[in-house]
Amino acid sequence: MKEIESLWDEVRELSLGTSSTTIDHLPSPPSPLHFLRNYVSPNKPCIISNAITHWPALFLWPNVSYLSHSLCHSSVSLHLTPHGRADSLVPSTPTHDSLCFASANVQRVPFPRALDCVLNSQPGKFVAYLQQQNDCFRTEYSAALGSDCDAHIGWATEALGCLPEAVNLWIGNHFSETSFHKDHYENLYAVVSGKKHFLLLPPTDVHRLYIRNYPAAQYSYSEEDGEFKLEMEDPVRYVPWCSVNPYPSPEAKESEMAKFPLYFDGPKPFECTVNAGEVLYL
Amino acid sequence: MKEIESLWDEVRELSLGTSSTTIDHLPSPPSPLHFLRNYVSPNKPCIISNAITHWPALFLWPNVSYLSHSLCHSSVSLHLTPHGRADSLVPSTPTHDSLCFASANVQRVPFPRALDCVLNSQPGKFVAYLQQQNDCFRTEYSAALGSDCDAHIGWATEALGCLPEAVNLWIGNHFSETSFHKDHYENLYAVVSGKKHFLLLPPTDVHRLYIRNYPAAQYSYSEEDGEFKLEMEDPVRYVPWCSVNPYPSPEAKESEMAKFPLYFDGPKPFECTVNAGEVLYL
Repeated sequence: MKEIESLWDEVRELSLGTSSTTIDHLPSPPSPLHFLRNYVSPNKPCIISNAITHWPALFLWPNVSYLSHSLCHSSVSLHLTPHGRADSLVPSTPTHDSLCFASANVQRVPFPRALDCVLNSQPGKFVAYLQQQNDCFRTEYSAALGSDCDAHIGWATEALGCLPEAVNLWIGNHFSETSFHKDHYENLYAVVSGKKHFLLLPPTDVHRLYIRNYPAAQYSYSEEDGEFKLEMEDPVRYVPWCSVNPYPSPEAKESEMAKFPLYFDGPKPFECTVNAGEVLYL
Repeated sequence: MKEIESLWDEVRELSLGTSSTTIDHLPSPPSPLHFLRNYVSPNKPCIISNAITHWPALFLWPNVSYLSHSLCHSSVSLHLTPHGRADSLVPSTPTHDSLCFASANVQRVPFPRALDCVLNSQPGKFVAYLQQQNDCFRTEYSAALGSDCDAHIGWATEALGCLPEAVNLWIGNHFSETSFHKDHYENLYAVVSGKKHFLLLPPTDVHRLYIRNYPAAQYSYSEEDGEFKLEMEDPVRYVPWCSVNPYPSPEAKESEMAKFPLYFDGPKPFECTVNAGEVLYL
């Protein structure tokens, strides 16, 4: 165990070159070589300012009617959950004695209605999130919005030696919360409107996350009575997922810290907020 | 075990992008970005031609009297073994029933004498090798030979973002043989005269090498009677070393293959020969 603990520190010191929990913030786009050498190669995240400030999207997309008008004939996938936590652990029974891995209710709806749901979300009633990881920007949005942004980010394309495999557009609100997960892709996360807060951990911290198997469940949603029901998959399917919630409620905090000491007693995660106009490499 | 075997294949396919056992050969030096993206980042070795052909060393150093004359006042570390295998496993007893990790006999001698020993090596009598990994070129040789080559390799320095941590000059002959080992450095191996043959394995193949602990021993050499004696270190010190000899003698071959099936039955190592004027990145 001591060896693994010193691995956490060594990765932070040797590979990421830092024992602080903030990440590098570049005031302007790096050269492809600088980006590859100092961030991609050592798997080190960074925030880049002034990389997308020339995108018309930055002043066009915050305008709700512009988006609704441009996409009035499009259908998109709307993800609905009761509280804004999709792909996360929730109690599978009313007695709270076991957890399951709950996926959102997904509906195909016209874009203007979907955007309406995002804007009028209310935890306890429903929280809506437009999110897909299937290259949805290029397949679903780009006919209408393609001219509002660049098709790729030049210096990153040159550094990585290939165009993006997928480009996704996500539209959420401040209730949307994604639990700890891993993405095995090089990722450039551009925020066009609003901001997003990240907690990041290096891959060598995997042991601190208490990955366990949870039975999969899915929310169903009835529009008539506005009720969510959580339905366990049948036959049962197990999903390995991180047990740690980094922001436990005040009343759960003590028991969560006791259950997951490797996380709560270990080094703090890297923390950053990406604001509109900024790009996070991770 | 199946999982580890498929890891060997996956690393070859995904990371190295090849199922062949030859490595890329670049006809001329790559740009820093190309080198970093296609070789350093994916940990992929390559041979580069025409990278050092402008070094005067290429025509100066093969000339024995030039070297001896330039370094007539220098002392260097001469490594002596009976057969050319330093830092390798040899029988620790005359009955061959156990192995030890044998280091060369090291002597500080005037360079001209050392070079003489290298050139007049004879397995069974002695094999000499000038080798050190302590930045010996810059500390011991560069006053005399520094103007014969570049102080660093520009495109690699730019790609890696730093000057070499160590520059070493090794002078051996065709008897010198180095057993499987790992170097945890980015390495540019330039051959100025002669050639060197490499067998390379990706780090994920470590399980195929049967790393075990062997007691350390050191050769002593008596100039008077020209005899080597193998002396076990006292107190005993154990060195973890690779058990596999990739080139077993014909009579030992069958038993070696039976003892180390993960190596002999698994994917072949990457194989290459670096000729004078070429650089191997590894």
